[in-house]
Amino acid sequence: MSDLQKLLSRIAPPDAALGERAQAHLDQLTKPPGSLGRLEELARRLVEITGQEPPRVRRPVIFTLAGDHGVVAEGVSAYPQVVTAQMVENFLRGGAAVNVLARHAGCRVVIADFGVAGPVPSHPALVIRKVAPGTQNFSRGPAMTLDQAVEAIEGGIALAEAEIASGSDLIGLGEMGIGNTTAASAITAVLTGTPVEAVTGRGTGIDEAAWERKVAVIRRALTVNRPDPADGLDVLAKVGGFEIGGLVGVILAGAAARIPVVVDGFIAGAAALIAVRLKAETRHFLLASHCSAEPGHRVLLDHLALRPYLDLQMRLGEGTGAALAFTLIQAAVKIYTEMATFKSAGVSRRQT
Amino acid sequence: MSDLQKLLSRIAPPDAALGERAQAHLDQLTKPPGSLGRLEELARRLVEITGQEPPRVRRPVIFTLAGDHGVVAEGVSAYPQVVTAQMVENFLRGGAAVNVLARHAGCRVVIADFGVAGPVPSHPALVIRKVAPGTQNFSRGPAMTLDQAVEAIEGGIALAEAEIASGSDLIGLGEMGIGNTTAASAITAVLTGTPVEAVTGRGTGIDEAAWERKVAVIRRALTVNRPDPADGLDVLAKVGGFEIGGLVGVILAGAAARIPVVVDGFIAGAAALIAVRLKAETRHFLLASHCSAEPGHRVLLDHLALRPYLDLQMRLGEGTGAALAFTLIQAAVKIYTEMATFKSAGVSRRQT
Repeated sequence: MSDLQKLLSRIAPPDAALGERAQAHLDQLTKPPGSLGRLEELARRLVEITGQEPPRVRRPVIFTLAGDHGVVAEGVSAYPQVVTAQMVENFLRGGAAVNVLARHAGCRVVIADFGVAGPVPSHPALVIRKVAPGTQNFSRGPAMTLDQAVEAIEGGIALAEAEIASGSDLIGLGEMGIGNTTAASAITAVLTGTPVEAVTGRGTGIDEAAWERKVAVIRRALTVNRPDPADGLDVLAKVGGFEIGGLVGVILAGAAARIPVVVDGFIAGAAALIAVRLKAETRHFLLASHCSAEPGHRVLLDHLALRPYLDLQMRLGEGTGAALAFTLIQAAVKIYTEMATFKSAGVSRRQT
Repeated sequence: MSDLQKLLSRIAPPDAALGERAQAHLDQLTKPPGSLGRLEELARRLVEITGQEPPRVRRPVIFTLAGDHGVVAEGVSAYPQVVTAQMVENFLRGGAAVNVLARHAGCRVVIADFGVAGPVPSHPALVIRKVAPGTQNFSRGPAMTLDQAVEAIEGGIALAEAEIASGSDLIGLGEMGIGNTTAASAITAVLTGTPVEAVTGRGTGIDEAAWERKVAVIRRALTVNRPDPADGLDVLAKVGGFEIGGLVGVILAGAAARIPVVVDGFIAGAAALIAVRLKAETRHFLLASHCSAEPGHRVLLDHLALRPYLDLQMRLGEGTGAALAFTLIQAAVKIYTEMATFKSAGVSRRQT
């Protein structure tokens, strides 16, 4: 049994009885039952997922994984490939959107190179898990070998396990990779059985002609590679990316450790589709921060039965939505732990 | 010219050119143009509304105004009237949901009695603006006199102006009043021209029979009082509430001072409908935090062309959604002021 298989075997559904106990506590608080809606749901799910009552979040972390995509040779992105490496440097300097929002939410950001094509700066905070300097152009053959797909996933697992060992108890998923919405669209089309044009968007902002090219490139990739929708690893290898594989590993490690994983944008969602295909029970550990402007994001959230908390029409990735969702999750924890009860406050309960 | 008329005459539309300048700055930041979606819109609107570039928020405040409603005699609420006063005490002790979420967002909560029926505790932090100990039962006649409606609005104006003079630069609206969803439904039906049953919900959690009674009570109120949809003051006096009048005043004072006002739940939204009817330009200063589970809330948000940022199915009021929205607004300010530009970070711009 491989390390990956061993980890998958450890992922078990959470205990729903814990959620009921949490709801019973929430119903004692000075508010009409259920009136804090999905904020209560968040608190309840934290208890279910972690098994901790009361819930707590002490060390939230966002994993922003970077990787390049050979498919950019087909002209599917508005930005040159070098931007992936440049943005890694920006992350390390703290000037990117995810840095700003993570500081706002009081959370760490772990930056890791899973397969950036160009040279990345040497920096003590940069984790190197580079599988290769960018994937192959998947419109002409597989993006990577099966061994590389496993290496990317296991890199993500190792990364997450190290953070979890340091006390991280809430995980957010972020990424950076010019061309990676093309990979995410291909993965979503295969794993949800949706036509390519319905899951392909404008990415960072391509025009109509480039969009048509992107759709054609993805269609060709599926024809050339014939990824097997029943096999998440095959889909990752044929039309995925190294940073996406890394995120699959982070998700699986989080689920195995019973830590809530906030799926952020479209690319992280595609990684979640693969993780859930590898082990269906992974689904129970996922939360969705927001739904991006990418059309495939809604499709995959519906497929995963995840309902986002924020309606902000963001489409940046990096983990930006996860950081915002963390502020809501912290709010839910405080509601659970800091509100007065009807009894303690001397407030009358409902009469009907 | 009355004080109210003078204030109304000071409310002028914001300068859209400022918003364009703000967007030009946002487009320099290291992200694809517009990719932070409504977070960018929030930053832009803050600049437009306040005229301050860069935007800043230093002293956010939530006004949680309390008042009782004579219409509870008709059995329209799941909770006894005494809960209004009990919850005021809970607010003052810091144990209610709005206290918890305001602490989370780093904002003040101003608690004011605009018309609680029962005795309220004497407390240095409680502002007394009591117009009367509860409104009249508006299913049998007007909720209050026109003079009382003006007194409630002017009380809200005075309250907000005092806070603004102390430096408050972001306002959230909250309320507490057993029975006040009945008033909000009546106001929404009149001012949006929507059938009563389409804007009447379950409030704090009434059953089907009580819901039917609530609809019948509101219909009777509209028949008995014939509020004039062209006259916001008439609507407030006939089917409103003292805390709703206070919120109208807070909104108007905020708009006159060019301060963003975050409309929270359904009742605050009904106050916004009245404020906008009194002076149409008030609309430009409003932001919507979330859409509650009350059906009338969606109707009035559409009428005001406000789109909420959070999808949390909350229905508590108090200003709870405003507190959560404040964390997003602070995030938008930080994006505007803390992100690196393409130039400063040495990141390549788009090539298409």
